Amino acid sequence: MPVSRIIGIKRHHSAIHNRRRRPSIMSEPAFIAVDWGTTSFRLWLMSRSGAVLAERRSAEGMTTAMRTGFADVLQSHLDAIGAPEDLPVLVCGMAGARQGWVEAGYIDVPASLSAVLDGAVRVPGQVRDVRILPGLAQRDKNAPDVMRGEETQLLGALASSDAGEKLVCMPGTHSKWVTVKDGGVTGFATFMTGELFEVISKQTILSHAVAEAEAFTGEHEAFTAAVRDIYAHPALATNRLFTLRSGQLLHGLTATDAKAKLSGIMIGLEIAGAHSTARRETPVVLIGSGALGALYEGAFAALEIQYTVIDADEAVRRGLLAAANAIWP
Amino acid sequence: MPVSRIIGIKRHHSAIHNRRRRPSIMSEPAFIAVDWGTTSFRLWLMSRSGAVLAERRSAEGMTTAMRTGFADVLQSHLDAIGAPEDLPVLVCGMAGARQGWVEAGYIDVPASLSAVLDGAVRVPGQVRDVRILPGLAQRDKNAPDVMRGEETQLLGALASSDAGEKLVCMPGTHSKWVTVKDGGVTGFATFMTGELFEVISKQTILSHAVAEAEAFTGEHEAFTAAVRDIYAHPALATNRLFTLRSGQLLHGLTATDAKAKLSGIMIGLEIAGAHSTARRETPVVLIGSGALGALYEGAFAALEIQYTVIDADEAVRRGLLAAANAIWP
Repeated sequence: MPVSRIIGIKRHHSAIHNRRRRPSIMSEPAFIAVDWGTTSFRLWLMSRSGAVLAERRSAEGMTTAMRTGFADVLQSHLDAIGAPEDLPVLVCGMAGARQGWVEAGYIDVPASLSAVLDGAVRVPGQVRDVRILPGLAQRDKNAPDVMRGEETQLLGALASSDAGEKLVCMPGTHSKWVTVKDGGVTGFATFMTGELFEVISKQTILSHAVAEAEAFTGEHEAFTAAVRDIYAHPALATNRLFTLRSGQLLHGLTATDAKAKLSGIMIGLEIAGAHSTARRETPVVLIGSGALGALYEGAFAALEIQYTVIDADEAVRRGLLAAANAIWP
Repeated sequence: MPVSRIIGIKRHHSAIHNRRRRPSIMSEPAFIAVDWGTTSFRLWLMSRSGAVLAERRSAEGMTTAMRTGFADVLQSHLDAIGAPEDLPVLVCGMAGARQGWVEAGYIDVPASLSAVLDGAVRVPGQVRDVRILPGLAQRDKNAPDVMRGEETQLLGALASSDAGEKLVCMPGTHSKWVTVKDGGVTGFATFMTGELFEVISKQTILSHAVAEAEAFTGEHEAFTAAVRDIYAHPALATNRLFTLRSGQLLHGLTATDAKAKLSGIMIGLEIAGAHSTARRETPVVLIGSGALGALYEGAFAALEIQYTVIDADEAVRRGLLAAANAIWP
């Protein structure tokens, strides 16, 4: 029997199959979890207990799916893992944006995270039950802000969290810092750190200074020094950026040091910004992974900021799991 | 007699011509002044007293001249105004950079501005006397910095200046803030304001928010509000940038308001940076012109910063004049 038939078990009819083969609750497929970002698509076949039974990753984010069709992109990945036709699908991220598949709106903060579950929107015209989670909006006049996808990471990261105030940091193209108090989101701020790092290193005069850079870590001296410098003097950010060029001209600054410095300036500025509206002692939860997560860990260490880490992939899957178990109890 | 012959009078032989026509010292050509930037070329035929007898402007900055040849670019403009063959040429700007025509080096700060005059480098192999003024360098380990061209504007702006401490602001692609004390440069800082404004408004997600913007002034409310906001909270710069997008999504922020806000964020951050290393009461001299100069005037007014204005073109011509009169007395 092909794998696609074995994992094609209907949750509510599993007793029939149990005669032949007994899938434990750990391995029985319960729903499909999808994190559909602007430029990335990730899908997991999940059991009710959170086990990952199959996984798909592609670059078919919203930008691609807007042209090729959201339903078709989803179906091709469901076919590839042989997902049974009545298994429900829970989606978070940009698929719920106005320019996405079906608009899933925003839940206004301050809000409890459980409000996100109640706001899930069903995609019409689909054979299976496909739902998209809403984002969060902060309608503050001076600091309007939105997120889509990160609210699901939050849900996963804070599922087993204790009470009290926390700052949750989610690094990325548009990094999010969320203030969480007793399980509710009281406010958040987006920083364009990742996108600005990209355009500054590729589209400005500084591209020459960083072009030949090699990999560096969060312990790299030029990185930690820049983090500390900008954290102390955030107003000098666009001046310190220029020192990548003048440092190269006058002091022979290497490309790797220049790129590490650029990264340290952008991340240090973000942390200074997050701390400008929070108490410095507030515990930080970093939802990150890979090289970028490691850079933030290096920055927090350089600034002597206490933090704990949760893997980003794990957080979004846990969030989708918590939501799925609430939506399809 | 064609104009090129009339202005083609040799200064040292003017007595001969005076029999036919007596040019006053106001109208007698004495030298050629050239401001040769990265992307622009400006040339003036000047009298010894500073009168402009002819002018040329083109986009043949260093970037173009590196390919087509500096000597040829200069000669074509000299031919166009019929400049006599023995009239000397004084150049400031990027033509003196390492990748320019002939490297003119840097004068290290702290330095008196007259040191710039002594550092002029003669271009070899030219029929006429062509000299390029050096730039300024700040070899500080934490804040290395360089300028080329702005030192000549400074020379012009401060020629008739009184003693005491001043902050001189020269807005542009790479804005310069110079601390001047009793006629000497004690330090300076470059801010990548103009270049970052360009890449952020054209190469990031914010390009959609500002694409349809109309012209705005330094009194525009979204501009002055952003200047004040970022001056007070510089650490939030990359967060406030994102509010151009979230403000559009949540509050219907118009493209013109978004672009004015972007400009206010970048200029407000620059001013906050300049003030982070200077006393707020230090008098500001703005060397600016046109729409950009007017925006800085609006920003200073919004922040209640006292300033005086000198036209940028006038400043560079006055600087080249002072230098020419010192080099060829």
